[in-house]
Amino acid sequence: MMTRVPYQQLEDTIAQAFLRAGMTEEKARISARFHAEASRDGVYSHGLNRVPRFIEYLTLGWVDADAEPVLVRQTGPIEVLDGQRGPGILNALYATDRAIELAAEHGTGIVALRNTTHWMRGGAFGWHAADRGKILMAWTNTESCMPAWGATDTRLGNNPLVMAVPRAEGHLVLDMAMSQYSYGKLQTTRLKNAQLPYPGGFDNDGNLTADPAAIEASRRILPTGFWKGSGLTILLDVLAAVLSEGLATHQIDQVDQGSCTGCSQIFLAFDPDRLGSAAHMQEIVDGMARYVNGSTPADPSRKVTYPGQNTYHTRQEHLANGVIVDDGIWQEVEALAEREPKA
Amino acid sequence: MMTRVPYQQLEDTIAQAFLRAGMTEEKARISARFHAEASRDGVYSHGLNRVPRFIEYLTLGWVDADAEPVLVRQTGPIEVLDGQRGPGILNALYATDRAIELAAEHGTGIVALRNTTHWMRGGAFGWHAADRGKILMAWTNTESCMPAWGATDTRLGNNPLVMAVPRAEGHLVLDMAMSQYSYGKLQTTRLKNAQLPYPGGFDNDGNLTADPAAIEASRRILPTGFWKGSGLTILLDVLAAVLSEGLATHQIDQVDQGSCTGCSQIFLAFDPDRLGSAAHMQEIVDGMARYVNGSTPADPSRKVTYPGQNTYHTRQEHLANGVIVDDGIWQEVEALAEREPKA
Repeated sequence: MMTRVPYQQLEDTIAQAFLRAGMTEEKARISARFHAEASRDGVYSHGLNRVPRFIEYLTLGWVDADAEPVLVRQTGPIEVLDGQRGPGILNALYATDRAIELAAEHGTGIVALRNTTHWMRGGAFGWHAADRGKILMAWTNTESCMPAWGATDTRLGNNPLVMAVPRAEGHLVLDMAMSQYSYGKLQTTRLKNAQLPYPGGFDNDGNLTADPAAIEASRRILPTGFWKGSGLTILLDVLAAVLSEGLATHQIDQVDQGSCTGCSQIFLAFDPDRLGSAAHMQEIVDGMARYVNGSTPADPSRKVTYPGQNTYHTRQEHLANGVIVDDGIWQEVEALAEREPKA
Repeated sequence: MMTRVPYQQLEDTIAQAFLRAGMTEEKARISARFHAEASRDGVYSHGLNRVPRFIEYLTLGWVDADAEPVLVRQTGPIEVLDGQRGPGILNALYATDRAIELAAEHGTGIVALRNTTHWMRGGAFGWHAADRGKILMAWTNTESCMPAWGATDTRLGNNPLVMAVPRAEGHLVLDMAMSQYSYGKLQTTRLKNAQLPYPGGFDNDGNLTADPAAIEASRRILPTGFWKGSGLTILLDVLAAVLSEGLATHQIDQVDQGSCTGCSQIFLAFDPDRLGSAAHMQEIVDGMARYVNGSTPADPSRKVTYPGQNTYHTRQEHLANGVIVDDGIWQEVEALAEREPKA
């Protein structure tokens, strides 16, 4: 069952749950905001739904609530940071802000972050940069969850890629995982006894299928665009590990402390003000938005959109009417917020 | 009909054709090498096959054989260049080399090139950088050739993305266009009376189809990974235009002087030696290659590969046995090489 919760109540309750799990006031507040904002923007998979698991990781010691990122080395506009397995959201936010600061100086700023933990919703850092008028490209590697193209065993990570460009009337933000569908999407589709809109993997006999249960059984989830997503995710993995001097997917698989623990991330910012191209940028993004929105829709009832446009509308609707949450998970998090404080 | 031509004969004949079209000796030689190497590596769509069209563009004045890129502005490790509609290969090669030089100084080097022309095979610049021990990300925007997700009219470019990481035993090079299949692939498949291996677009009734003729008729070619490739190509387009202060796809569509004329490109290099991470890089890429190559193949007769691995094998085979070329196009280019020199 789904219900609606006012945004501020959602954020406050999650913050309270994180406080009770032993985080400091400030860290609990920021982490709660990123989880609540993911649900607010309709990215349920990395919002409220992930709060119990994050607290479990803290309890198991897989994420160190008190760890802070440390500078490993700096070369021109590039910084390598060690996240020391602190909370992934806080590490990624620090890295984004550092990339923005470096970009203000050099035109571009690049932070390569290693030894961090799950950043939850990657797109959040794109929105964060765009809200500050900056361009951001960011990606993470992860443990493996899908087979390379032509393989049956899972050896590739889902390595989401984020690209964001600011726009006065609504930012362009792409937040793209490398599998065609997530395992979460397979599960929710199966629970509805439905088929995926398009094929999402192979069954155990090697046939392409849109049946979520058959893909869950084979674990042969499909890379985005077949061989193309398979190749792209390999390069994103390698680049993140090389530039951060951190772990690649084949090594993260050995860590085996939950999703993304020990992963490597890249944050590449550009400062249009420093580059003198802010006015040109607005002309380009407005022209693109008009062009794409002016497409002839295949379904006359559905507008053709650029990345970030639907998110923005979901956000407005949730802020007005309350954020949609799963009843059971909401009760679970309310209980986590009310339990005895950690000693 | 296909035939085999020794590599050097292929390059020499193309160079002669370019000389006769009015290029200088040096420019003809470099341009010929890039076309010949594309065919040598099995990328037939952007090799010998494109020579007549490139000469046509020179003749029409859409490409200016004598134009050289000029520096527009520099900010730290970032240079903006105007390609002045010179030959796209030469502009892109210059931009790649400048990015490498900037990276030797700053750790990273970024060249944003505007007002250039078709770079032919984007992957060539990845191989070029990797041969010099450098990491490269590069992409171009283009005129539109496919509909945005949910649309029926073509408003998105195919905007290929290149990523290359050097490796002693064979570089990792990804060269990925944003449509699931090229129009060239649709044509060759149709001429064989075959179906595409996987759906490649929608027919005129809006049904997903693997029939190349039906997609050619509707012009509704599929973005890589459906909505995902649609989003990615929009962001690549905007970023190239913003950083180069050049044209985006919606503006290139107004130029209407053949494929890619007036386009914007990004060349982002990293120097592992300058960053002190060359040894770590070799460990990562070798570990990744072992992991991916060690996958369980779905078809026991086909090895699971990383991007660039098959290209490398095609190259060796063509160098040993001659490059596979289309008879008719080969004769056409031989004739272009033998015609009267341009006054």
